[in-house]
Amino acid sequence: MNGELCAVNNLKLRHVAIDTYRENVAYLHRDCPLYRSEGFQALSKIEIHKAGDGPPVIAVLNVVGDPAIIALGELGLSEQVFAQMGLPEGSAVRICHAALPGSLAAVHRKIGGDRLTQSDYREIAKDIVENRYSRIELSAFLVSCAETGMEREEVLYLTRAMVETGSHLDWGEPLVVDKHCIGGIPGNRTTPLVVSIVAAHGMLFPKTSSRAITSPAGTADTMEVLARVDLAPEEMQKVVRCERGCLTWGGTARLAPMDDILISVERPLSLDSPGQMVASILSKKIAAGATRLLIDIPLGPTAKVRSRAEAMRLRKLFEYVGDAMGLFLEVVITDGSQPIGRGIGPVLEVRDLMQVLRRDPKAPLDLREKALQLAGRILEFDPDVRGGSGYAIARDILDSGRALAKLEAIIQAQGANTEMALPGRLHHPVEAAKAGWVTVIDNLQLARIARLAGAPMDKGAGVDLHRKLGDRVRKGEPLYSIHAEFPADFEFAIQAARQNPGYEISR
Amino acid sequence: MNGELCAVNNLKLRHVAIDTYRENVAYLHRDCPLYRSEGFQALSKIEIHKAGDGPPVIAVLNVVGDPAIIALGELGLSEQVFAQMGLPEGSAVRICHAALPGSLAAVHRKIGGDRLTQSDYREIAKDIVENRYSRIELSAFLVSCAETGMEREEVLYLTRAMVETGSHLDWGEPLVVDKHCIGGIPGNRTTPLVVSIVAAHGMLFPKTSSRAITSPAGTADTMEVLARVDLAPEEMQKVVRCERGCLTWGGTARLAPMDDILISVERPLSLDSPGQMVASILSKKIAAGATRLLIDIPLGPTAKVRSRAEAMRLRKLFEYVGDAMGLFLEVVITDGSQPIGRGIGPVLEVRDLMQVLRRDPKAPLDLREKALQLAGRILEFDPDVRGGSGYAIARDILDSGRALAKLEAIIQAQGANTEMALPGRLHHPVEAAKAGWVTVIDNLQLARIARLAGAPMDKGAGVDLHRKLGDRVRKGEPLYSIHAEFPADFEFAIQAARQNPGYEISR
Repeated sequence: MNGELCAVNNLKLRHVAIDTYRENVAYLHRDCPLYRSEGFQALSKIEIHKAGDGPPVIAVLNVVGDPAIIALGELGLSEQVFAQMGLPEGSAVRICHAALPGSLAAVHRKIGGDRLTQSDYREIAKDIVENRYSRIELSAFLVSCAETGMEREEVLYLTRAMVETGSHLDWGEPLVVDKHCIGGIPGNRTTPLVVSIVAAHGMLFPKTSSRAITSPAGTADTMEVLARVDLAPEEMQKVVRCERGCLTWGGTARLAPMDDILISVERPLSLDSPGQMVASILSKKIAAGATRLLIDIPLGPTAKVRSRAEAMRLRKLFEYVGDAMGLFLEVVITDGSQPIGRGIGPVLEVRDLMQVLRRDPKAPLDLREKALQLAGRILEFDPDVRGGSGYAIARDILDSGRALAKLEAIIQAQGANTEMALPGRLHHPVEAAKAGWVTVIDNLQLARIARLAGAPMDKGAGVDLHRKLGDRVRKGEPLYSIHAEFPADFEFAIQAARQNPGYEISR
Repeated sequence: MNGELCAVNNLKLRHVAIDTYRENVAYLHRDCPLYRSEGFQALSKIEIHKAGDGPPVIAVLNVVGDPAIIALGELGLSEQVFAQMGLPEGSAVRICHAALPGSLAAVHRKIGGDRLTQSDYREIAKDIVENRYSRIELSAFLVSCAETGMEREEVLYLTRAMVETGSHLDWGEPLVVDKHCIGGIPGNRTTPLVVSIVAAHGMLFPKTSSRAITSPAGTADTMEVLARVDLAPEEMQKVVRCERGCLTWGGTARLAPMDDILISVERPLSLDSPGQMVASILSKKIAAGATRLLIDIPLGPTAKVRSRAEAMRLRKLFEYVGDAMGLFLEVVITDGSQPIGRGIGPVLEVRDLMQVLRRDPKAPLDLREKALQLAGRILEFDPDVRGGSGYAIARDILDSGRALAKLEAIIQAQGANTEMALPGRLHHPVEAAKAGWVTVIDNLQLARIARLAGAPMDKGAGVDLHRKLGDRVRKGEPLYSIHAEFPADFEFAIQAARQNPGYEISR
């Protein structure tokens, strides 16, 4: 079928209150004369055109037999598509077969083992951003890249294509810093500390973060305990102009939108190929206007990167693409052998970082140290900071209370959350089965238990660690506590910890 | 999330009249307490359990905000899932998170370039047949096989796993013949002729065919013009016992069900890797109880196979897997440079094949010749038929009228269609733009025009060829006619033929 052969017709738009996540679904009644005569069938891809001009919205068709859901002459749209159309119910639209995305030919060449060109990646990006790829086509593209692997030039081409198909922020200053951790370490909530220290020093740090997708908390989830994070782009810019930094959710700006679409398929597939990861991270940072970037690669037996050789290959790939894109970046390889800090889950993480900022004697030292190391490296992006002196400056800013004051100012500027959030009211200690020293803490299992307990949806849910690697425990002493809000979640998490507590203890 | 952590709860089943094609979709109200507390979200995969025992049905979750579609405490099922559950509305079911399919680890190894083992393919097949793979996971599996390619042992492993996960027909005779064409040539409707000839000779030929998916007609679509084709397995066996042959639709038996699921993703992806093709064809034939098989590979510039080397590689792969599975098969490479016969589309193809059977002087000779060649080769599977004499026996059976009598007997046994089907009432001649000889006919474009005209949904729609390769035409003489039932289809098809008639004429 062909997009040029367009059916001209009048359908009345109807909102169908079904959440189909990132898949655009349109509903048409089975007896609609259009359905039969135009050869539409269930799962056909269609273009939905508004009256007048403007690009069509693409959706997959579901065929309905119940007029209570969709009547003859109506076109139903799931919540996502309805929002994209931006028209009231009852508006007239016409539909036609969506043209097969032209760039699928390049995907077939990639499946065949070819190296793709810059223009191939540009066409693929354009089609994906216009929603022309179905989820199975997205999966085919991602697997084809993961399987033969991408040459580093291809990673550069993909990064460039991802940047070009989205909007771009320009901060009007040469020095705009950012940081990114490739993830996988629960509790690793250094970002609010690093932003507060660096912005207090006066450097521009407009930080947008993601919400958790497979982890128990993203920086945006944790920050949301303290302040509003879903700021419109103008609001965010006002905060940054005023405070030199912000800590918001990155979902509202259309920065590298191709990445958001790819992630919706990568996550359920657990595909995390180095090429896609590098392109995803760098495209988002460049689109957000960063000119200096610090990348944190945690290394450990249950981290994402498990060997020094792998970490090194990834570092080189980041450097190659960053340099070619004109982004100055540095990569640090950090200790990823266990969670950072004590709390895993939004409220528990907030407790940890406020302890660090307030110089509470109970503050987790590893979180403080890691934040100072990272902030120190970023401060050295400032030409006026002498190499090697960043750490000491960061420590002074933290210990003088200026970082705490900066975070409080950012919270006020974004809109402070006045609700007092507490750790989940249900709690259960997980005890050591024998005496000895903690020799292994499994990042993946602790993250899983925290999620089952309800994090990040329930802000107070998660895991609170009482023992870390190298600590001595007696039999029956608590290794960590599980916090939850809801009994069913609580039971799930306890059951999972019973099957595998995620700790190993040796004599 | 983990399958063992099963939510115990009572939801009332509700039929939601939405056709989601081959994707199982379940609908749950947004405010359902279960949705929140159990951490379900849109696109989560869930297991739906009946009261008592039995395997769960797997579906993807859509979250609904409208109680008219789904109320609190209800679980809605799209048509496909509702049928699979086989329970009345209002039945109590419980749902829980579906365990991630264990065999995905093998798919990840395949993406990493590994060779998979027999037990890997067995586990993948089991998970796929139990509907545990989402469409994006199916796509990942198919692309991983297409991309590194499968070694021929792997094609064998896959074939065996596909056979083992379905049911198997046993005809109780050592000689059960079948034929298969890999497709791509419009109008190539030899099967009804070949079955009639061979069954008239007395060999057992229980032929099940598919409906068209991307072509303008499958053998089942064409046969349906003459007789019922959706016979229950017992009905089909009765026809075969009586007539030694049948011509039915293969969709009702659960033969190699994995193949049906894979095809639902391969087709929209236009993935047709040799390994998947061979496993798909051979698993279906073995499951259907065939012991002797003739494979037809048409070769031509717009056929599926475009070089003799490619045809030869495919032949070797068929032979390797067939031999290892104990299926005696022969491969013939035929002329695929243009459509066979004149009619493209169910009714027009029936006209052609009845002309051949009735020895009408207007009968298309190429269709007759090809049917005789193929029938002759199959007749030689009979130990009593001397090598080389099959063609002459086939010709005798055809010319004596015994093939016609056999087809008429099969039609009566299956249930004759008494409606007289005619070519579509709208027709339009496509004329030669200049005088000369026909040097190219594009199979793909002619198939596309026939589909746009309404084939196979409208039995009378399609294309009727008046000129074939090597014929001389004058300017303005008709090359072919388009037939359609509906004005919109008719216009689409004419427009497509205007853009590209699919013919080249040289002086």
